[in-house]
Amino acid sequence: MASSKGLEGIVAGNTSLSLVEGEIGRLSYRGYSIRELAEKATYEEVVYLLWQGELPTPEQLAEFNARSVAERAVPEGVIEVLRLLAPDAAPMDALRTGASALGSLLPKAQGTTIEGALALTARIPTILAAYHRLRQGQAPLAPRSDLGHAANYLYMLTGNEPTAAQAYAIDRYFILLADHGFNASTFTGRIVASTLSDMCSAVVAAIGALKGPLHGGAPSEVLKMLNAIGSKENAEPWIGSALAHGERLMGFGHRVYKAEDPRADVLRDLASHVARRERFEFFETVEREALRLLEEAKPGRRLYTNVEYYSAVVLDAVGLPGDFFTPTFAASRTAGWTAHVLEQMADNRLIRPHAAWVGRGPRTIGEREPVRA
Amino acid sequence: MASSKGLEGIVAGNTSLSLVEGEIGRLSYRGYSIRELAEKATYEEVVYLLWQGELPTPEQLAEFNARSVAERAVPEGVIEVLRLLAPDAAPMDALRTGASALGSLLPKAQGTTIEGALALTARIPTILAAYHRLRQGQAPLAPRSDLGHAANYLYMLTGNEPTAAQAYAIDRYFILLADHGFNASTFTGRIVASTLSDMCSAVVAAIGALKGPLHGGAPSEVLKMLNAIGSKENAEPWIGSALAHGERLMGFGHRVYKAEDPRADVLRDLASHVARRERFEFFETVEREALRLLEEAKPGRRLYTNVEYYSAVVLDAVGLPGDFFTPTFAASRTAGWTAHVLEQMADNRLIRPHAAWVGRGPRTIGEREPVRA
Repeated sequence: MASSKGLEGIVAGNTSLSLVEGEIGRLSYRGYSIRELAEKATYEEVVYLLWQGELPTPEQLAEFNARSVAERAVPEGVIEVLRLLAPDAAPMDALRTGASALGSLLPKAQGTTIEGALALTARIPTILAAYHRLRQGQAPLAPRSDLGHAANYLYMLTGNEPTAAQAYAIDRYFILLADHGFNASTFTGRIVASTLSDMCSAVVAAIGALKGPLHGGAPSEVLKMLNAIGSKENAEPWIGSALAHGERLMGFGHRVYKAEDPRADVLRDLASHVARRERFEFFETVEREALRLLEEAKPGRRLYTNVEYYSAVVLDAVGLPGDFFTPTFAASRTAGWTAHVLEQMADNRLIRPHAAWVGRGPRTIGEREPVRA
Repeated sequence: MASSKGLEGIVAGNTSLSLVEGEIGRLSYRGYSIRELAEKATYEEVVYLLWQGELPTPEQLAEFNARSVAERAVPEGVIEVLRLLAPDAAPMDALRTGASALGSLLPKAQGTTIEGALALTARIPTILAAYHRLRQGQAPLAPRSDLGHAANYLYMLTGNEPTAAQAYAIDRYFILLADHGFNASTFTGRIVASTLSDMCSAVVAAIGALKGPLHGGAPSEVLKMLNAIGSKENAEPWIGSALAHGERLMGFGHRVYKAEDPRADVLRDLASHVARRERFEFFETVEREALRLLEEAKPGRRLYTNVEYYSAVVLDAVGLPGDFFTPTFAASRTAGWTAHVLEQMADNRLIRPHAAWVGRGPRTIGEREPVRA
């Protein structure tokens, strides 16, 4: 029997959603490279592509946008649940609870259908933004129907209509993070779906997995590192000292990519447009010094800038608080999670691995009075 | 690269918690067969065994019982969340949401430690019972410190102190269902933990997986089948007709067991003590006819009575409503889920399989105006 701790080297199923080519640094959705999608498509088109297999025609897109906009508002009960958690819950905990409440209060968010996928995907930003407002003592804002999915999220969160550059950047971020093969959260969602549970349960489980710092929980750590470094001049000594003490640098290296993460490249370009100029130069200096010193410290390990590094920069520049980086990742990835649930349902087999026994026994308790009714 | 849809035949890691020997129909926890544990131990002792590796001494048990009892009450905010869901949410959805809220409101329920495991395990029954009371328009009952874990659950749910026979039966049920290798919900919890997320997120994800009818969501289906059959005399014609129409009989067959599920045997014995006599004879008749007709219809398939069949009978006999069978399974299994999280944390590696690409591409969008800020 094949055995692999962490399932590394094990193919757990088929997909036609996204292809991660780690050796050449390419990521594609339904065959289209994410570089081209980020250049020419909107997030709504990418969501449609993931769920339907093809990019929408202009008519299909108009209909899909109208449907999506109509699905943005959440039941008042979900807001009341979030109010009970505010202001102390971590945003990922609030999202997990709010999304679970949504599935309990809005039955269509349970469907393992495109309708169910849309019911959740359209509302996750509303839940997140509402929680952010509530924890600041502000009333949640109603979604705006004249803004795109990602831009409306920024608006509901900050109360300000995003600039064109901000709207563009957050929409690109949403495209880039929408799917990524059988990552841990996506695979979690597929297992839940494989029991014939429901769409909401799969997404709630995936949110819990994404929360972990080995998966989606690290981008705010990048920001903390950048803040700790503080200046261009401090980059080399700070990083050198961190590596000398055996610390892990946040934002570099990836289990799958052995070339530059293609998302990092697009995000760097976005960051150059939305971040203040001296901030961007600082980020570039830290990146350059980190890559140089990593290569010196661990030659041949092929550690490149990963998606988290410039994610942190871009999300910071569009005005998101650091503890909303991972929740925003979740909002984007909901499109992928739900697409994977749909794919799992189309050809389902219960996902249930084996375990190798390494424990004691058989042994007996020995002489002991039975417990009796 | 090894490949297996559903991960059948793939060993995903090591465990020293429970050993499922499907060919000989044996299940053991930490080396002790569940038959012996069900005869000689209490649920609290089994929980201690799973978490600590050894059965407690009388002194350790007294201390553990006192700690467990002190952890039963839930924050008022959790009750308020449940109130917002009542009366329409399905109990598993309410449990998923209530458990998630618990983790948001009670930070110790996030710890991937025995303290975190106990914070959740002690409170899941309280959440479930509160929801059942609320959906009936009744006030939740405070936990009683003079009853065992499972008996107190029955009390909080029904408002009546269980008889000795009921308390004994529900405690045995909790023992028998507490752990079972890398089943789908447990493996879901381990993946979530492997990202270094938190205990509550792992349990919430596992609840979502257990909900599915291919995993824990089926015992109430057994009751529906028994109600549809209705009488001993109708067993043979009803089952014969179901099999002739290619329908699946609920409560028979298991992916791992190719002998009688050892839990079914103990549960049958319990059922004979708690069910009314003519009810029990009816259940036995249905079982006998089902096994006979299944062997006729599918010779050599080795389909045996599974854990769900007599689970349904026992849970019905102790007074649980049918839609609380799977939630009660979750309450028992929380001990196992949390034990697996502890085990995963002791020697962690991110669980992330690969996917086989079966999609289109590479392809390009072609001529199209770039989307610009």
